[in-house]
Amino acid sequence: MQLLEERILTDGNILGENILKVDNFLTHQVDYRLMKAIGKVFAQKYAEAGITKVVTIEASGIAPAVYAAEAMDVPMIFAKKHKNITMTEGILTAEVYSFTKQVMSTVSIAGKFLSKEDKVLIIDDFLANGQAAKGLIEIIGQAGAQVVGVGIVIEKSFQDGRRLIEDMGIEVTSLARIKNFENGNLNFLEADA
Amino acid sequence: MQLLEERILTDGNILGENILKVDNFLTHQVDYRLMKAIGKVFAQKYAEAGITKVVTIEASGIAPAVYAAEAMDVPMIFAKKHKNITMTEGILTAEVYSFTKQVMSTVSIAGKFLSKEDKVLIIDDFLANGQAAKGLIEIIGQAGAQVVGVGIVIEKSFQDGRRLIEDMGIEVTSLARIKNFENGNLNFLEADA
Repeated sequence: MQLLEERILTDGNILGENILKVDNFLTHQVDYRLMKAIGKVFAQKYAEAGITKVVTIEASGIAPAVYAAEAMDVPMIFAKKHKNITMTEGILTAEVYSFTKQVMSTVSIAGKFLSKEDKVLIIDDFLANGQAAKGLIEIIGQAGAQVVGVGIVIEKSFQDGRRLIEDMGIEVTSLARIKNFENGNLNFLEADA
Repeated sequence: MQLLEERILTDGNILGENILKVDNFLTHQVDYRLMKAIGKVFAQKYAEAGITKVVTIEASGIAPAVYAAEAMDVPMIFAKKHKNITMTEGILTAEVYSFTKQVMSTVSIAGKFLSKEDKVLIIDDFLANGQAAKGLIEIIGQAGAQVVGVGIVIEKSFQDGRRLIEDMGIEVTSLARIKNFENGNLNFLEADA
């Protein structure tokens, strides 16, 4: 997605070896125009897939996910992230390890919002190690629903997340793919949409 | 907002004495149509106010806030909630006490996203004790920006939040105002928009 790649080059900040900060349009301050455009690109990509739900994880995934949901005219569900969770009836959960924060969290979705008939598009802001997406895929699987694809705003292609998801037989659609960081700049791979 | 009140009556679940669960359209599964309509109502209410930024707090505030931002054509900022925070340069923070969870958290916004010229509309999903809104007002004040109003999707009018904010001289616009819960039903006060 050219508009997104241009925005990353203009407004993204590269910190250290491999951290990309996009807090001025995605992860803290949010540019609704870009989010809306992103939502439309995901919807076009999955126009023929019969998506019935968009699922994301709080908090930075919510804005792109709600616009994808709008463009596909389906509900959006955001999974909750907890440090400690008391198991509650009807709550589907998965354990997710954050390599960045080096903590395990529990991700959850109320089972009543997913059924065997659902075809789900997962949306998230970043794909790095793929642990968050893997957790969502597990939860959606517990509900018997089908994950049709994983839509990512920014993929760090030098990490393992994409392969992890593709090895589960699930398509990844990343709108920007970062090949590597080099002397304070970044190089893109060809994006999926 | 009649559409919202009707939706609360249809899809809201009253648990115990004074808990309203709206996880099927606002706090977990999100109905983008309703969020879009809510965003437009806030934008109409503040059409003449010269709003330059919408500020909310993760996570349930994000969907109504991004649609309010769209309707007013301004950026949206979502404040971060942390259990423990290491003070970082340029980060504005406030301590927020949650009566529900009985824990203190730190709410933060990067100072670079707010300036003295900003006129801010705060948006949040619920107003109960008003502690979250108070924290956001403090942070925005630290940046020297002006809080023009606080837009709330669902106000629990039997709690102190509204008075707390109004006592600071700030207007509250609640789209649904719950007067009380009674035998598993709820009664509304007249909403602000």
